[in-house]
Amino acid sequence: MLTAERLATLRRDDLAGVLVVASSGRDPDLAPFVAGARLGRAVLVVPARRDPALGYFTPMEREEAAVAGLRLLTPELLEVQRATRESATEGQALAWILGRALLAAGIDPGRLALAGSLGAGWLVEATRSLEADGWSFVSGHELLRRARKAKSDDEVAAIAAVARATAMAIQSLAGRLAAAVEAEGELWLGGSPLTVGRLRSELAVELARSGFDQPEGCIVAPAEEGAVPHTSGTPERRVRSGQSLVVDVFPRGRLFADCTRTFCVGSPPEALRRAHGEVRDALSAARSAARSGVVGWDLQRMVCERFAAAGYATPIGNPGSVTGYVHGLGHGVGFELHELPSFRENAGETGVFEAGDVLTLEPGLYDPQAGYGVRLEDTLVVRGEGVENLTELPYELDPGAYV
Amino acid sequence: MLTAERLATLRRDDLAGVLVVASSGRDPDLAPFVAGARLGRAVLVVPARRDPALGYFTPMEREEAAVAGLRLLTPELLEVQRATRESATEGQALAWILGRALLAAGIDPGRLALAGSLGAGWLVEATRSLEADGWSFVSGHELLRRARKAKSDDEVAAIAAVARATAMAIQSLAGRLAAAVEAEGELWLGGSPLTVGRLRSELAVELARSGFDQPEGCIVAPAEEGAVPHTSGTPERRVRSGQSLVVDVFPRGRLFADCTRTFCVGSPPEALRRAHGEVRDALSAARSAARSGVVGWDLQRMVCERFAAAGYATPIGNPGSVTGYVHGLGHGVGFELHELPSFRENAGETGVFEAGDVLTLEPGLYDPQAGYGVRLEDTLVVRGEGVENLTELPYELDPGAYV
Repeated sequence: MLTAERLATLRRDDLAGVLVVASSGRDPDLAPFVAGARLGRAVLVVPARRDPALGYFTPMEREEAAVAGLRLLTPELLEVQRATRESATEGQALAWILGRALLAAGIDPGRLALAGSLGAGWLVEATRSLEADGWSFVSGHELLRRARKAKSDDEVAAIAAVARATAMAIQSLAGRLAAAVEAEGELWLGGSPLTVGRLRSELAVELARSGFDQPEGCIVAPAEEGAVPHTSGTPERRVRSGQSLVVDVFPRGRLFADCTRTFCVGSPPEALRRAHGEVRDALSAARSAARSGVVGWDLQRMVCERFAAAGYATPIGNPGSVTGYVHGLGHGVGFELHELPSFRENAGETGVFEAGDVLTLEPGLYDPQAGYGVRLEDTLVVRGEGVENLTELPYELDPGAYV
Repeated sequence: MLTAERLATLRRDDLAGVLVVASSGRDPDLAPFVAGARLGRAVLVVPARRDPALGYFTPMEREEAAVAGLRLLTPELLEVQRATRESATEGQALAWILGRALLAAGIDPGRLALAGSLGAGWLVEATRSLEADGWSFVSGHELLRRARKAKSDDEVAAIAAVARATAMAIQSLAGRLAAAVEAEGELWLGGSPLTVGRLRSELAVELARSGFDQPEGCIVAPAEEGAVPHTSGTPERRVRSGQSLVVDVFPRGRLFADCTRTFCVGSPPEALRRAHGEVRDALSAARSAARSGVVGWDLQRMVCERFAAAGYATPIGNPGSVTGYVHGLGHGVGFELHELPSFRENAGETGVFEAGDVLTLEPGLYDPQAGYGVRLEDTLVVRGEGVENLTELPYELDPGAYV
């Protein structure tokens, strides 16, 4: 979606406008409008019936702010220095600056949808002060979430670049596993054991080489650790042959991508091999069914039916089960690691896929008793006729298939 | 400062308590109390006259939350699931959960100092709703900033680890510069030119190897780019001999560290050589004068007097000058890249160094016309009798001195 269309979705008759306050240009409520501009504290005003305006707080960010292509409110116009100097508190200074931004954007006091994120104490002081001037506030996060659901071509390209680097990093990890030698069940490489911490460090180095970081960490979870979907893995833990290893990597460039593969060096136990086949088929079926107009929850139901028919517990048939399929099928991904479209029941319009949505599909099967977890996850972009897979990587348990 | 002493500074007679709401355990207002626990959304309640309590929002974070050593408010007790299910909006759900947390912490409705950071729209809805129940809010950020000023031994150790990795990464960069060959003034290594982007990528890889990332980026700024203190450096720019190269690195582990060195491959112009000597002497003088009880602004004045005596413009003698010494002398560093102690005039008690404060000293001299910048910066911890330098690295312009 283009910035202009996105801004248009924010204009509503029951609002005087939308106000986004953020401590960084990366704030997920602000980032969809600034085209990657590297900003510190900033404010976006979208009046219901006038042009939007972007305010920045330090003069040296002028060139960066211009990248957004919006009307700019300079620190001089916002009186940032004077507000800071002459206000009794930082909250009062913020009220001053936001008041200047609203005035400059040409809105008369009224109802504002507020979004973004900033210090809670400053926000509560500033909004109280603005209320005394006739403004009122409701949450604008839901509006902003919907506005950033479908991605622009630029944003899809930015996610695709991270997805490629993620695939390369996982491929490199697979190469380490494939090259390892086994000693009493443990995997060794270059004279030292392959630990979770070592593999995680190598992932971080590979991603840094591509220019990406991992603000949300990553999951490298062997055996029974991988049987609990959100366990990140104990660094000292040594990787062993004949066990599952869940590798779930979700780095950030300008936007996030997300990918999971599950490995097993050596011969997998029959239960793991069978679960892996079921997960792979479920991912394939979900991917084939996904297209514009499809509802996330319907895909979740379909996958639950498949797994139930194969004899596994599911969140629909067996809510609360920690064995079998125990989570949602996927999530939108981009400005946040988890965003719209939603795969939840009753998600309404926020669960309907549309062209430009970027999402992950990540079926999995888990058995804490048997000590295995399997999850496979791709990042995809929704097109009219189907999806385009941004994750190009094999699905095999055998790391040798990746090299 | 121990968590118990830190919590004691938050107990004030004019407050019913302090409420910190955060989207992550890394929030600078929350992190000083959770000992590195990896938490998502969380809430800290510090009643004026009862035990503090830490609330977390998802059951699987139980073990992480326990790391903090505080009384825990579980998601079940906070009714997180029920609040989410039965509230009309996310802001109302947040109000419900915060209300439960305040009740469970045993505070009667009254004045709360609010800190932390969360979605602005949800906060404004939640605080309005709590006000209807008799609560009122003032900003608690200033109180929290003072509480986290002095660091515990654990926190100093965490900063020292990042400072060591930073020094190693800069040393490695110096090694690349020292090994480079010159062709028509440009520096080449391994058959390709040394660009700002390449050096920055290699810094990121070195830091990732140590387990640290750079959420605030870094500065690798040659010649006239380095003459403007906050210019981060153009990636395509090729590094040349006989020019200054400012390398300012500020990565994060559990906490931040910060270090700057300035390099010149080959023979430096006389103005650069002289400025470098002055900056080095200023850093040495400031470091010798720093100890518990000293005021940051007094050190800034001292450094300004030195630079003025050597014929350079300073912010005191020549406010607004872009040539000479053009910024503050340093800043506290830890949970945020810039925190207390303050080096500003009229900082009051927030400018007085005390034992356990971690801060940087970073004098610099700049000349955009002549096209050079020099800045040298160490991270130090304040002790009773002086400071301990956490940055062990030479100061020379010549990268050969670092290898």
